[in-house]
Amino acid sequence: MEERGISQAVIGRLPRYYRYLGDLKNEGVERISSQELSRIMNVTASQIRQDFNNFGGFGQQGYGYNTSYLYEEIGKILGLDQQHDMILIGAGNLGQALVNYMNLKNRGFSFKGAFDISPSLYGKKIANVPIYPMDQMTGFIVENHIDIAVLTVPKAAAIEITQILTETPIKAIWNFAHVDLKVPDRIQVESVHLQDSLMKLSYNIRRHENES
Amino acid sequence: MEERGISQAVIGRLPRYYRYLGDLKNEGVERISSQELSRIMNVTASQIRQDFNNFGGFGQQGYGYNTSYLYEEIGKILGLDQQHDMILIGAGNLGQALVNYMNLKNRGFSFKGAFDISPSLYGKKIANVPIYPMDQMTGFIVENHIDIAVLTVPKAAAIEITQILTETPIKAIWNFAHVDLKVPDRIQVESVHLQDSLMKLSYNIRRHENES
Repeated sequence: MEERGISQAVIGRLPRYYRYLGDLKNEGVERISSQELSRIMNVTASQIRQDFNNFGGFGQQGYGYNTSYLYEEIGKILGLDQQHDMILIGAGNLGQALVNYMNLKNRGFSFKGAFDISPSLYGKKIANVPIYPMDQMTGFIVENHIDIAVLTVPKAAAIEITQILTETPIKAIWNFAHVDLKVPDRIQVESVHLQDSLMKLSYNIRRHENES
Repeated sequence: MEERGISQAVIGRLPRYYRYLGDLKNEGVERISSQELSRIMNVTASQIRQDFNNFGGFGQQGYGYNTSYLYEEIGKILGLDQQHDMILIGAGNLGQALVNYMNLKNRGFSFKGAFDISPSLYGKKIANVPIYPMDQMTGFIVENHIDIAVLTVPKAAAIEITQILTETPIKAIWNFAHVDLKVPDRIQVESVHLQDSLMKLSYNIRRHENES
């Protein structure tokens, strides 16, 4: 499987394919054509074929794709056949919600510990995940082979903590802070900028009002 | 200001410009060149000029942009000079975290009410936002001129509630359910698919490991 040069735009579409194929599989659909998938997902069949060709094509065009096979293969490409151990950094409202949410919808992502600067939280748990002091973070990452740090702290703290994280063997940061993080190439970053998303919505409301 | 035909990719970049310009403004930077903004934001100066030209350019290239003016103008384009009243649908962990988060970082977005199917929550409040039964939702939207419904419910409920929302004057849905919503053109939708984001991260971890 040749993956170099595959754009982040293509990668960004894979989880959506995975989601739709999971639904089709659950509905008992055994085979699906790119035309039918195109109709359901509201993208062109040509786009689907181009995207899949990045990974070898996954089966015969015309004859259609085997739904279960395609679902499993895209899952493997997404690394979902591996276990990812995570820590939460910042045990506030959003962080607690994420731990509860992920533990509910477990797909190989599992929180092993949470870290916070507030001493009143030490020894407490979020959905069975213990909360520790920040200064135990680096040791915890090393000892527990943590892959992903989930950052739900304010901006200034996020920058500071990211600096500490770059000195640990962490592989990735899932960032909810309202800032773009600077990290070495070996650390992957995916940011969820909630305010940016809401601003985009606000723009589209205004544009629609101006047009109508 | 001519805005028809501006791609969602350009729109998607506006909140990031707004965020950086807000930081520069707070740091007392009065003017900034596209080259300098390019360096800070890690995009090409040509991209910045192209993006800004969609909205008339915002000032003299070479001489640089007036930071405050640019910040205010992009804010207006994003509709941030308007008040947006919102409701939360689904008062679980994630929903409660969003209400707390938004009320903290108020930029013209304000939760007026929350709705849930669980009777044990009725009469309770999240950060001063009262929780009501679901069957009062439509009336509440009409009476309180609600613009945005924030959906933090499971997938099946999200589809059902979206159907009800299309019969109200709601302008937009900020969707956190793990499904793509089908709505008429007059309703804007912006989805935050947390699982998709985490899968993309997982992909990049795996790809980096295969390459190194």
